Amino acid sequence: MSKKPSDFSRRDLLKAAAALGTVPFAAACERSSPISSAQASSGDTQGSFNAQVVVVGAGIAGLTAARRLVAAGVDTLVVEACDRVGGRTLNHNVSAAQALPGTVVEVGGQWVGPGQDRVLALIEELGLSTFKTFEDGNYIDYRNGLKTQYGHVFPIDPLNLGLNRLPLTDPVAAAEAALAIETLTSMANQVPLDMPWTAANAAAWDNQTFQSWMDANLVTPGAKSLLQLAIETLFCAEPREVSLLHALLCFHSGGSLEHMISTTGGAQDSRIAGGSQLISLRMAQALGSRVLLRAPVTRIEYNDKGVRVSGDQFSVHAQRTIIALPPTLSGRITYAPPVNGLRDQLTQRFPMGSVIKVQCVYPKPFWRDAGLNGQATSDTGPVKSTFDNSPPDAHVGVIVGFITGSEARTAIMQTREQRMAGVIESFVRYFGEQARTPLEYIERDWASEEYSRGGYLGYLPPGVWLDYGIAMTAPVGRIHWAGSETSDINRGYFDGAVRSGERVAEEVAALL
Amino acid sequence: MSKKPSDFSRRDLLKAAAALGTVPFAAACERSSPISSAQASSGDTQGSFNAQVVVVGAGIAGLTAARRLVAAGVDTLVVEACDRVGGRTLNHNVSAAQALPGTVVEVGGQWVGPGQDRVLALIEELGLSTFKTFEDGNYIDYRNGLKTQYGHVFPIDPLNLGLNRLPLTDPVAAAEAALAIETLTSMANQVPLDMPWTAANAAAWDNQTFQSWMDANLVTPGAKSLLQLAIETLFCAEPREVSLLHALLCFHSGGSLEHMISTTGGAQDSRIAGGSQLISLRMAQALGSRVLLRAPVTRIEYNDKGVRVSGDQFSVHAQRTIIALPPTLSGRITYAPPVNGLRDQLTQRFPMGSVIKVQCVYPKPFWRDAGLNGQATSDTGPVKSTFDNSPPDAHVGVIVGFITGSEARTAIMQTREQRMAGVIESFVRYFGEQARTPLEYIERDWASEEYSRGGYLGYLPPGVWLDYGIAMTAPVGRIHWAGSETSDINRGYFDGAVRSGERVAEEVAALL
Repeated sequence: MSKKPSDFSRRDLLKAAAALGTVPFAAACERSSPISSAQASSGDTQGSFNAQVVVVGAGIAGLTAARRLVAAGVDTLVVEACDRVGGRTLNHNVSAAQALPGTVVEVGGQWVGPGQDRVLALIEELGLSTFKTFEDGNYIDYRNGLKTQYGHVFPIDPLNLGLNRLPLTDPVAAAEAALAIETLTSMANQVPLDMPWTAANAAAWDNQTFQSWMDANLVTPGAKSLLQLAIETLFCAEPREVSLLHALLCFHSGGSLEHMISTTGGAQDSRIAGGSQLISLRMAQALGSRVLLRAPVTRIEYNDKGVRVSGDQFSVHAQRTIIALPPTLSGRITYAPPVNGLRDQLTQRFPMGSVIKVQCVYPKPFWRDAGLNGQATSDTGPVKSTFDNSPPDAHVGVIVGFITGSEARTAIMQTREQRMAGVIESFVRYFGEQARTPLEYIERDWASEEYSRGGYLGYLPPGVWLDYGIAMTAPVGRIHWAGSETSDINRGYFDGAVRSGERVAEEVAALL
Repeated sequence: MSKKPSDFSRRDLLKAAAALGTVPFAAACERSSPISSAQASSGDTQGSFNAQVVVVGAGIAGLTAARRLVAAGVDTLVVEACDRVGGRTLNHNVSAAQALPGTVVEVGGQWVGPGQDRVLALIEELGLSTFKTFEDGNYIDYRNGLKTQYGHVFPIDPLNLGLNRLPLTDPVAAAEAALAIETLTSMANQVPLDMPWTAANAAAWDNQTFQSWMDANLVTPGAKSLLQLAIETLFCAEPREVSLLHALLCFHSGGSLEHMISTTGGAQDSRIAGGSQLISLRMAQALGSRVLLRAPVTRIEYNDKGVRVSGDQFSVHAQRTIIALPPTLSGRITYAPPVNGLRDQLTQRFPMGSVIKVQCVYPKPFWRDAGLNGQATSDTGPVKSTFDNSPPDAHVGVIVGFITGSEARTAIMQTREQRMAGVIESFVRYFGEQARTPLEYIERDWASEEYSRGGYLGYLPPGVWLDYGIAMTAPVGRIHWAGSETSDINRGYFDGAVRSGERVAEEVAALL
């Protein structure tokens, strides 16, 4: 059984830590393990700089904005807190001896898929290429202590319910889940992407959690469990934390719930050759000295004439600034004058999800020999969903798993060894004993990253869209907001980040 | 009718502001109107200091902790961002010419009541005194466009449902609300104050918003409306934003829901002669130069040996530090090393309520002549609840009103003139034409205060207690947490602040 958040083991851990007067610390990105490939551009964190526009944050959103502005002839600087670019994308060089030099997996965001037009265009522009996520073979579903294999094709699906995408251990539950997904899709399509609070049912949907909707509308525990996993995997939060309206908006924004949870043809369709961080690395390379690394912004002064963006040892004067950070982090900067109460309180209500992305490298993708595609779904943690993340030539095998929501919050306070033991237990449960001895164990806890503080993205609890939605992208003086969380389309995806960067570049360029 | 958050007027305001490239700015406390009485102690914001313990925040919690530590012989310094002490308590000198010099009303927290033993003891210790909130006469309830007077004694209440405390316009609704309050009280008493996540029904109750519980359990719109007002007035948030578990915990913590919404004999029983800020002012006076004002903390470094708490122009070295700030503000400090992910993500999920406290001063408390006690409840904003806040001798009359939750979020983005017009409209609706021409209009929007960012207190949305409860008071290294939001008893009240200060002082003293 999955551990409950109130388990004694967890409380005792904290109590023990508190008694020692210390609990595990988070890693500042400067102190994280060396990231050699991340040094695409270098910056100087000391001194005084001038530009027309200063962008805060060198993730995909910020770099896209800067790239666009520079292309339009605008003198632009990007300041980045970390010693690398990429934000919530980060390549990791596989260190196992059997792996060829240059073998890369991502410890952050990694997938792209159809409908994500702007990021696909950018990938092409940057000379990068994609390859298909491996999905040949059977799926594993682990539920109520039983492991089941199922294929992708359900023999009879006359109503076209999408049953072929759901585990068939319990056909009644699968049918109910498929119908629920249909219902949710039809509700989602009623939510305007730009102003979700104007949906006819906005109040009713923002009054409740996704969990409340499930409790009121689903009968079978199996269907509830499947939808719970969908929410946990998409939002890195529990269904009880996410506003129903917000979930519906995201389904609409991401194409559809079915699209978002699908691999081939869906949001997990393809991977980027060389790793997704290359998107940011290439953009930063082109921007060259316009990107200043190791430059955490602590203060932004602004008035009718311009802005001054500064940190401990540097400052940038500019006409306008673009904040391309997770919303919760944008709320930690000191603004002078302080931003209005609506904007500030929005950032108090925009938490990041909780995710630890884990990967095991094996001498070969042994599950493929057993006719498995490496994808597992489960009702039991710590890892409740996995994918085959092997390199394209599969000269080594990689399974990637996600510890999300409640499971992540338990795992955050564990040691690396404790987490690894739990991950391997999960992988063995799904793929057998061969999973017990990886060549390399890779993990990244995004909640503990000082300059991300969670992942994949920020989500909204009930009631926030209704009262604070208008503050999402409204500029404050000469301060403009970007980031995937601000995108109408593909909110939370790379594509949303690109779109937000393009939108804000246009918004700012028009005002210079 | 109350305006809906998605009203066009509000969107248009933002749009217009955005088009101008500017929206209203918040006030930093240094820039707020002069607060002469607040200069009880003076500090030096420049230089390097040493102490055994450094307390961040000179509200009631921080000052209580410092007072306790100093009494125990511990060398203690308090650093405060504002140019005054008191946190979310703040006296205002009534400026109307008819008011006697020294006439004070509070623009922040103001009431104390039975059961709040620790703050009542402190008040006595400090040589302060209390007086009863005026409550003689009839109440006003405004609902469905109709104004009704009702008295405090319901003729027949055989079941002792507390009907006498509820508007009787709609006896069926009043009876349902009274029964609901009974039910909620019995649920609340099942929530352990120290570990709410261990309640037998913790998951079911933290899965949903308070609104979902109302929707599932209440039939009459009148009862829903009354309970909505109770939540709005107690939490400064909408029922859809607050976890049912959190609401129940707070009811238990505050005595009972009935106690919390009651004046005589309840949480609004008494006021403090000279204004509630005197609690902090007196404590600060005794601490003298141990309180440093105008010292916003931006960075806290810590290791096994000690801490360094610093701002732009000052730093304090100490053995340990106590953070006595609203949780959301504690999350904005840069910690080196960064705090663990659980603590950080807790502060991302702990928003402050939204409240604008408004007051009108009149030549006399004219409503008393009409047999009214100045208390109104309403389903129509911007002001949905009022009290008589006249000075003890009633030489002028004062009505205090609360704009909370959604109403506050609309009002935040209005001009002072727009807000005042709405407030006076509300007051006239309840008390007649004489309310139209106040001698003085006083308002304080706590969401716009840079060093409070909302009020009265932080609340928790669904799911947070379950997964993050253990991080609420767990020290991180040599950093300890105080503030009324961390108190088991009377959470959110002055009394909770005092208790948290006492608890943390003991916690720290034991480790020196």
